[in-house]
Amino acid sequence: MKKSAHRSQLPINRPIRPLLIVLSGPSGVGKDAVLARMKESGYPLEYIVTLTTRPRRPSERNSIDYHFISADKFQEMIKNNELLEWANVYGNWYGVPKEEVKRALDKGQDTMVKVDIQGAASIKKILPQAIFIFLMPPSMEELRLRLKQRHTESPANLDLRLKTAEAEIKQLYLFDYVVVNRWDKIDLAVSDIRAIITAEKSRVTPRQIAL
Amino acid sequence: MKKSAHRSQLPINRPIRPLLIVLSGPSGVGKDAVLARMKESGYPLEYIVTLTTRPRRPSERNSIDYHFISADKFQEMIKNNELLEWANVYGNWYGVPKEEVKRALDKGQDTMVKVDIQGAASIKKILPQAIFIFLMPPSMEELRLRLKQRHTESPANLDLRLKTAEAEIKQLYLFDYVVVNRWDKIDLAVSDIRAIITAEKSRVTPRQIAL
Repeated sequence: MKKSAHRSQLPINRPIRPLLIVLSGPSGVGKDAVLARMKESGYPLEYIVTLTTRPRRPSERNSIDYHFISADKFQEMIKNNELLEWANVYGNWYGVPKEEVKRALDKGQDTMVKVDIQGAASIKKILPQAIFIFLMPPSMEELRLRLKQRHTESPANLDLRLKTAEAEIKQLYLFDYVVVNRWDKIDLAVSDIRAIITAEKSRVTPRQIAL
Repeated sequence: MKKSAHRSQLPINRPIRPLLIVLSGPSGVGKDAVLARMKESGYPLEYIVTLTTRPRRPSERNSIDYHFISADKFQEMIKNNELLEWANVYGNWYGVPKEEVKRALDKGQDTMVKVDIQGAASIKKILPQAIFIFLMPPSMEELRLRLKQRHTESPANLDLRLKTAEAEIKQLYLFDYVVVNRWDKIDLAVSDIRAIITAEKSRVTPRQIAL
C-alpha cells in the first residue's frame, strides 16, 4: 500500500499494473508452508485458493488451504471453461479458478497462485508475462528426507515423487526466478520472494498481464 | 555472503555470476546519499570510486567519495583507455576507472558504479547486461527545493539543472529499474535497491557481464 502511494507521485506517466506471481516447485518442496508464511507476513497480495478433488488432510481448512470439491464438480468446471489451468497430480485433480484470478487483477491487486510444475507450464503458455518462481529444495537428499518425514507416502510413492522432482527441476528454464527453500529457514525464501516482487514493481517496463 | 552459500547447494549446475549495478539519476536526486546509506547497511557490494576533476567539497574525502585528480591526469587516462566511461558534467570531468571494475568482477564480487545519465547511457552500449537503476526524485518540485537547499547553485545554474533533469528523465527507457528517492526516507530507496539485487541474483538466466 505504502509502495503504490509513493510510486504514484512519479513525475512520469508510468502505469503500474498488478502482477501475477506463479509459485511452483516439486512436490514436498514446501510451497504451502512458504505461502502460509507469506500470508502471515502481511505482504499485500491476493492469494488464489486452488481447487482440488483430493481428500482434505486433518490440518487443512476448506476454502482457505484449498477449495475441496467433488470430481464431478471439477469436470463441470473444466467443461464450462472456468479453470485457468488444471492438472492431474498423483491421481487427484488440481485447478486454478479463472474468475478469482481475473477479479483480483481487475481490482489492481498483485496476485499469487500456487501450482505444480505442469500447472506453471500451462499458465506460461496463456500468460507468459506472469512472474514464474521455482521453489527449489536445497538438495535432492534433503527433499527425500522431507518426503519421508511427511509419512504420507509409501516407499514406492516416495521414489516416484523423487524421480518426478528430478524431471521437474529440468524444467527450470521455463521460470524467471529460482528460490531455495530450506525448511528450517522458510523466512529466507519468503524474503527472496518479497524482493522479487519489489524488483518487478520497480521495472521501467511493466509486465502486461491481460486475462 | 550468506546468500551465496545457500545458493551454492542448488541441485543444478547454475553459474552465479557477479552483477554490475549502475546507479544513476539526475543531479540533486541524492545518488551520493543513497550510496553512502547502502555502504552503511553493510550490504556485500564492491563500490567503485569515481574519478573527477572537480574541486573537493569540504565534506568529501579523497579516494572515498571520489578520486580527485587533475585535468591533465584525466586526459592521460582517457588516452590510455583506462576509463570505462567518462563525461563532462557542468564543466567538470567524471570517469569510471575500468581496471577497478574489472578487478572487482574478476573477484566474483557484485559491483556498483555511480554515474550520471550520460554515463549510464555509455555503459549501456558497452555492457548492456549490467543492471541499470534510475534514481528518481518524488517530483520536479521536490527536486527544485532540494537543489535550492544545497546552496551550491546560482539561480541560472539551478534552472539549467532542472531543465537537464527533465531531459534526463526522458531517458528512463534505457534503464531496467526505477527507484524513487525521498530525502527523508533514503532507507526506502536502499531497500528497493537491495531487493532488485536479490531478485537479479535469483534469476534463472543470469546476466553475462564480460569486461
